[in-house]
Amino acid sequence: MPYVNIKVTNEGVTREQKGELIKGVSDLLVKVLNKDPATTFVVIDEVELEDWGIGGLPVPEYRAQLTK
Amino acid sequence: MPYVNIKVTNEGVTREQKGELIKGVSDLLVKVLNKDPATTFVVIDEVELEDWGIGGLPVPEYRAQLTK
Amino acid sequence: MPYVNIKVTNEGVTREQKGELIKGVSDLLVKVLNKDPATTFVVIDEVELEDWGIGGLPVPEYRAQLTK
Amino acid sequence: MPYVNIKVTNEGVTREQKGELIKGVSDLLVKVLNKDPATTFVVIDEVELEDWGIGGLPVPEYRAQLTK
Amino acid sequence: MPYVNIKVTNEGVTREQKGELIKGVSDLLVKVLNKDPATTFVVIDEVELEDWGIGGLPVPEYRAQLTK
Amino acid sequence: MPYVNIKVTNEGVTREQKGELIKGVSDLLVKVLNKDPATTFVVIDEVELEDWGIGGLPVPEYRAQLTK
Repeated sequence: MPYVNIKVTNEGVTREQKGELIKGVSDLLVKVLNKDPATTFVVIDEVELEDWGIGGLPVPEYRAQLTK
Repeated sequence: MPYVNIKVTNEGVTREQKGELIKGVSDLLVKVLNKDPATTFVVIDEVELEDWGIGGLPVPEYRAQLTK
Repeated sequence: MPYVNIKVTNEGVTREQKGELIKGVSDLLVKVLNKDPATTFVVIDEVELEDWGIGGLPVPEYRAQLTK
Repeated sequence: MPYVNIKVTNEGVTREQKGELIKGVSDLLVKVLNKDPATTFVVIDEVELEDWGIGGLPVPEYRAQLTK
Repeated sequence: MPYVNIKVTNEGVTREQKGELIKGVSDLLVKVLNKDPATTFVVIDEVELEDWGIGGLPVPEYRAQLTK
Repeated sequence: MPYVNIKVTNEGVTREQKGELIKGVSDLLVKVLNKDPATTFVVIDEVELEDWGIGGLPVPEYRAQLTK
């Protein structure tokens, strides 16, 4: 009965890629823990860049700083 | 001081239904644990169908498969 | 396919009370949104008092202050 | 390696204010626990008023009641 | 900069299995979205059986019912 | 009505440090967004090192690798 939440920045993740994440995580839980996919939930959240911070900065500023 | 997070698929939940969920959860916490509604938070997240996986598939594909 | 997370302070919630919370939330989701309990997950987290803050204070200090 | 999630109601938080929250939380984790900002994530969620409940009511109704 | 939270029931997941979950999820995010593992966090929560509900029942009662 | 969840590795965070985190986050939300501390919740989770992954490895292995 696993529940998996995947948070990624909102940068054009396609519907197909979401399907691959869902399948990949479910398969992993079968392989490692023998969990039934029928009761495995995967929820994907796409987070806007300005709402994600790392290094004390929103992602856009953080990346700009890295590439200086 | 409970905090309750309800995640449901985004399929036309009305404002009135959200109010019923909030009231129902707060009442339940009063009844079972005598929690003060004034410090009971309920946060509802509506998740797009393509972002929710079950059975190794996004919900739309999962449902299509069930009804085959 | 709802997922509900209930966080309460860790203050002697019994196994029976947890069962009532799980049943109450599942019933509510049937009543309001016609959700199938078979794919409704409820996860309860009990949080230590010192790990929960309100009013800028951990719960024990917050309560002590209220009752002064 | 902290992960911090901040949920606030969606009421016109500016990009600049989000930057201040991210910086403030990262600085706090340096000061209190000496955590490296490079591995400190902060994720901000803005929650619609109708999706946030307190006192058994959605926020708009709750506030209306308070000011009666 | 993904953040992944995996919740499973607390039923003897070994340290080695946790390592496989962490590696599997990180690898999946490289493969599907080209995410850097150095900024991919995976957090595993083990939830007690009595704290996880499905079908309106805590997991132990739910399983007992299934095998009747 | 903010809700803030802070996840850190379980490495001897003292009760006093938790109090500083709670106070610091509440003060920050007053300063930046003028949020009332009386309805600001802060929940701290301490995560075991083997349950936290970064760089595709559990934290203990990740750190061992860094210091090689």
